[in-house]
Amino acid sequence: MLEATSEQRARANQAAVAAMLAAEPVIVDVLSALDALPGMTPNTILTSGAPMAWPEYEGGQRRAILGAAIYEGLAATVEEADKLLHEGKIVVRACHDYGCVGSVTGVTSASMPVWVVEDRVSGSRGHCLVYEGGDRERLTYGVWNEKVHQRLIWIREVLAPQLAAAVRATGGVPVKPIIRRALGMGDDLHSRNTAATAVLFQQLYGPILDANGFNPTTREVLAFLSQNELFFLHVSMATGKCIADVAAGTPHSSIVTAMTLNEKQFAIRVAGAGDRWFRAPIPVLNAKLFDGIGPEDIAFMGGESLITETVGLGGLAAAAAFSLQDYSGGTPQGMVETTEAMYGITHTEHPLWKIPFLSFRGVPFGIDAELVAKTGVTPRIHMGAALREGGHAGAGLLIAPEGPFQEAIAVLGSTVSAH
Amino acid sequence: MLEATSEQRARANQAAVAAMLAAEPVIVDVLSALDALPGMTPNTILTSGAPMAWPEYEGGQRRAILGAAIYEGLAATVEEADKLLHEGKIVVRACHDYGCVGSVTGVTSASMPVWVVEDRVSGSRGHCLVYEGGDRERLTYGVWNEKVHQRLIWIREVLAPQLAAAVRATGGVPVKPIIRRALGMGDDLHSRNTAATAVLFQQLYGPILDANGFNPTTREVLAFLSQNELFFLHVSMATGKCIADVAAGTPHSSIVTAMTLNEKQFAIRVAGAGDRWFRAPIPVLNAKLFDGIGPEDIAFMGGESLITETVGLGGLAAAAAFSLQDYSGGTPQGMVETTEAMYGITHTEHPLWKIPFLSFRGVPFGIDAELVAKTGVTPRIHMGAALREGGHAGAGLLIAPEGPFQEAIAVLGSTVSAH
Repeated sequence: MLEATSEQRARANQAAVAAMLAAEPVIVDVLSALDALPGMTPNTILTSGAPMAWPEYEGGQRRAILGAAIYEGLAATVEEADKLLHEGKIVVRACHDYGCVGSVTGVTSASMPVWVVEDRVSGSRGHCLVYEGGDRERLTYGVWNEKVHQRLIWIREVLAPQLAAAVRATGGVPVKPIIRRALGMGDDLHSRNTAATAVLFQQLYGPILDANGFNPTTREVLAFLSQNELFFLHVSMATGKCIADVAAGTPHSSIVTAMTLNEKQFAIRVAGAGDRWFRAPIPVLNAKLFDGIGPEDIAFMGGESLITETVGLGGLAAAAAFSLQDYSGGTPQGMVETTEAMYGITHTEHPLWKIPFLSFRGVPFGIDAELVAKTGVTPRIHMGAALREGGHAGAGLLIAPEGPFQEAIAVLGSTVSAH
Repeated sequence: MLEATSEQRARANQAAVAAMLAAEPVIVDVLSALDALPGMTPNTILTSGAPMAWPEYEGGQRRAILGAAIYEGLAATVEEADKLLHEGKIVVRACHDYGCVGSVTGVTSASMPVWVVEDRVSGSRGHCLVYEGGDRERLTYGVWNEKVHQRLIWIREVLAPQLAAAVRATGGVPVKPIIRRALGMGDDLHSRNTAATAVLFQQLYGPILDANGFNPTTREVLAFLSQNELFFLHVSMATGKCIADVAAGTPHSSIVTAMTLNEKQFAIRVAGAGDRWFRAPIPVLNAKLFDGIGPEDIAFMGGESLITETVGLGGLAAAAAFSLQDYSGGTPQGMVETTEAMYGITHTEHPLWKIPFLSFRGVPFGIDAELVAKTGVTPRIHMGAALREGGHAGAGLLIAPEGPFQEAIAVLGSTVSAH
């Protein structure tokens, strides 16, 4: 039924990728998830990955979801929250189905503030929580405690309103030029956002001061923005979702529009198969861990920062970010080989986002599930690593499993010659 | 007389380089040249390069020196200034002899504000004018007109006092960590200072606001600091001078302590030969020029930003700054080869300043004139290009001439075996 001629597939992929490249993502606001996300409700908690039934969440995602229920005042205790989740009085949904993406656990509840990134061309919007800070213990990394709780309140009550006022005053902050500059300054825009954070700061400090004045509170906000090197990651993610969704639903297209993790599964969507997830168990993460942490200490707890790879960044742009050796391991030669391999499974090269070491060749852009299925080469993904008991543990390289891409192509139908 | 055994030379070079590496350069103040530079007088005008007699300055340096005389109120007209310079009532001296370095023309007069960078270990101080801005027309690039004049007044009256207040409030800004970070973000700290400027901004915006409040004037100052990508260059240069001077005067040492240009000559100093300049005509600059500018339009007008190469940055760190292709031309492979070649003429590798693409190998550090003379490989220097009639024209790569290094070794004396 879905079967397409090779010409139809080629035209569909061309259209899907052209639309993504034409997008002009702009930060337009910072709003509560309830106000920003279509369909969001006060008792909905979003989390990373293809959705599972509540009892299947057993690790960091479970802890973070329970924490969010308390944070929202939906339950007084973890036990009560668990009961309400079992009864369906609190519901768990997939971020991706609400125009949102989440980092690691990705837990996003109604009152939490999200970046709103809008494509000025199509109107597509992508969202992602405002970055939670560099502390190893965060809800993002599956930790719920009083310190985490207080920081979330500070983000909601202090940081987000100031950011929102500043962003509105600018009339919108275009993201493509920031990413272009950051790729020229050693960022991959996934595991490394040091330069993008600095460039965003150069653009936002003025509007923040203009909109909020200079006082002890703005001082805290400016310090938070300038001292957290991964602050821009969540803007990068919202931008990726905004761009990828432009292609979603293109009939016959085998272009990947989402890659995501829950605690147990890696999953993808392709443009021509709508909202259907293609899932597989998560492969081993080849990670560089912080001192004192061993492989037995880490566990998956979801993650959707892979949306950056979906739009040509992260692992696909590894050859732009040699400084990542420090954080996530690997070698410069390996990083070049990673990016080179990705040209073999992508539709084109980005005309604006370029890699200095490759003589300013554009990043590989538009992962084509058909090329993945044909070559057996799968996306290389830069990823943070989480402690089993919660907390940030390091970072590394994840090589996507082949199965979901093959399954997607099976569902889309192999292309048949038109002649 | 100066002749040394090979063992003496080796010990001397080891000591010279160890002292440079031990330096802890810190931005401690912004002062007028008169207040900062030992021996400076109100009617002294400093300029780049080994000194020449006044009539020998014929191009951009001449125009800038005449402009500075008017700026200082030493003369009302260019003609009067020329007369006073001929009569020796205004004197022209070499920046390097006053603990200072200058960009391109390097013209530095009494009331102009300079960065003060102090080595906390030895007390050595290096100085360099505060960056004049990104406009193509500047005194730095041999232009004197009313717009240039007004900008210099703004720098003196508005920018410098705010910077000084901020720097003093911090108790000193250590420079080595900023350079370390910037090398990991694509800067060479000579032709590219984009990252270092952003990092410095993240450190100084707070003290600037604390010391000066938030008002239309601080707004201008913060905009100037965040929008001029080369703003940090003059800090990098003052730092280079501060570090190189720690080694100056080490008996028997063949380590290079200065490389500089006037309009006509390339010149160096080596640690064991004190203040003596070794000179040669300037070779051809292989430059990438801004659109509409041809090789016939450019001319040398001095330059001492080569002090960055003297301490392992600029061309020596080319493999850290692949984004320079855009600005100064070249290829990534050529940049890697440039840095690789420099390991052959330097004493060691910097333990803190590292190049991501070379698996975090330290930058080549401590140019040894003896190795240059032996191998015929000369320093590769990143440089700005100037319009003959004044103005910024582009940037490129200068390959130093061999003569001065050979002459320095002849004067130091070839090493003779101690056995």
